[in-house]
Amino acid sequence: MKILGYFKLILLSIILMLWFNKYNLIVLIGYKSRYVFVHFFDIFSCLKISPTHIKKINFIFKNMITFITGNEHKVKEAENIFKDYDINLKHIDLGYTEPQGTLEEVAISGAKYACHELDCPVIVEDAGLFIKALNGFPGVYSHYVQDTIGNQGILKLLADSTDRYAEFRSVIGYCAPNSEPKTFLGKVSGEIAVEERGDLGFAFDPIFYVPGEGKTFGELTTDEKNQFSHRKNSLEKFIKWYSSKE
Amino acid sequence: MKILGYFKLILLSIILMLWFNKYNLIVLIGYKSRYVFVHFFDIFSCLKISPTHIKKINFIFKNMITFITGNEHKVKEAENIFKDYDINLKHIDLGYTEPQGTLEEVAISGAKYACHELDCPVIVEDAGLFIKALNGFPGVYSHYVQDTIGNQGILKLLADSTDRYAEFRSVIGYCAPNSEPKTFLGKVSGEIAVEERGDLGFAFDPIFYVPGEGKTFGELTTDEKNQFSHRKNSLEKFIKWYSSKE
Repeated sequence: MKILGYFKLILLSIILMLWFNKYNLIVLIGYKSRYVFVHFFDIFSCLKISPTHIKKINFIFKNMITFITGNEHKVKEAENIFKDYDINLKHIDLGYTEPQGTLEEVAISGAKYACHELDCPVIVEDAGLFIKALNGFPGVYSHYVQDTIGNQGILKLLADSTDRYAEFRSVIGYCAPNSEPKTFLGKVSGEIAVEERGDLGFAFDPIFYVPGEGKTFGELTTDEKNQFSHRKNSLEKFIKWYSSKE
Repeated sequence: MKILGYFKLILLSIILMLWFNKYNLIVLIGYKSRYVFVHFFDIFSCLKISPTHIKKINFIFKNMITFITGNEHKVKEAENIFKDYDINLKHIDLGYTEPQGTLEEVAISGAKYACHELDCPVIVEDAGLFIKALNGFPGVYSHYVQDTIGNQGILKLLADSTDRYAEFRSVIGYCAPNSEPKTFLGKVSGEIAVEERGDLGFAFDPIFYVPGEGKTFGELTTDEKNQFSHRKNSLEKFIKWYSSKE
């Protein structure tokens, strides 16, 4: 029994790339003139693959961008947007330490780290809720604030406030080997509601009211929300730039 | 005119070290058998000295610890505590990016970075206010929270709360070349007052009430506060450990 030659394996990998839009593990085992072909579909989503493995196979992928996230909601939203463009999107949950700073600084730091580790083009995303009357609080620390004082805390802070303007902001950080990272900002404007409404969505969604819709994010389905979300805006800005640079 | 030989310069530096407890720039210029001695006292506090310079001269200092901070209050507090021990304290304002995480993670990250840059033993300090009824908020992000919602924000969040227990915590991160970093936690317990009191101190001091003193931190002088502060506790823990390892 012997492993099929390197050249033939590459050739077959490229052919299979035309059929599948996912990372695949292709194993060809030959015995005399007979070959057994084993194809593990989208194996990288099922297994924890080390950055070294990704590096080794990355050279066979063109127009492939790896989305660094552990959040399935973000992956689905991004896949929905990318499917209309000639860009292949992968996702990997590669943990990294975020610095204290702006959304842009967090996104750049993550993109640089992941690009260095994986040696391929990557995007990362960081988002936050910015409330005008609270000087941008909770901003880049939205996740921490949600886990500690939560929506009720935000409502208390704004109890006497007539200015209830707020923005969800999303920043995409992009980095490719041997180039400087770039960021793309997307926003959606709204108001902080006087009470929580709706049980769809998560985190600050039930208190983020969108006047144009007459509903909070908590009262909109994911599909409805994704029509105009901050993340859609930032991803589309990125895609527009990425497509024009080709 | 010629610069005095390396050996004599070292010798004189050591002698001068016995007189001064600060970094000094010593210049000896010799002309034939006559020498001109120029001594710039504590020049490093006046000039922005690059890490490379520090590295070059560090080998002549023993039992010297560099405190990485840009905060003069912290420096004074630390100097007051260190003066009773056989440890020389320097301070340098070396900017570094703090990661999002616990006080311990921030302190370790800063100490590792500074130790690597300066190639000498360093300490860094990170502190925060942890309010029990708010699940530890504002915690490690105290500085950001102070800058956005401020003391009035904290009072609003606790308006209906009978549990007003809070702690100031300080973590010292220590790192020396070729050794793993260590952390030392100091605390001071108190309560969140119902209103701001006192105009001494800064940040959360006017709302941090210490029952044993019957005053807020804002009503205590720096000297009074430093008798039992969280920073005094963490620094003393560090000194105790450091002195015992000699």
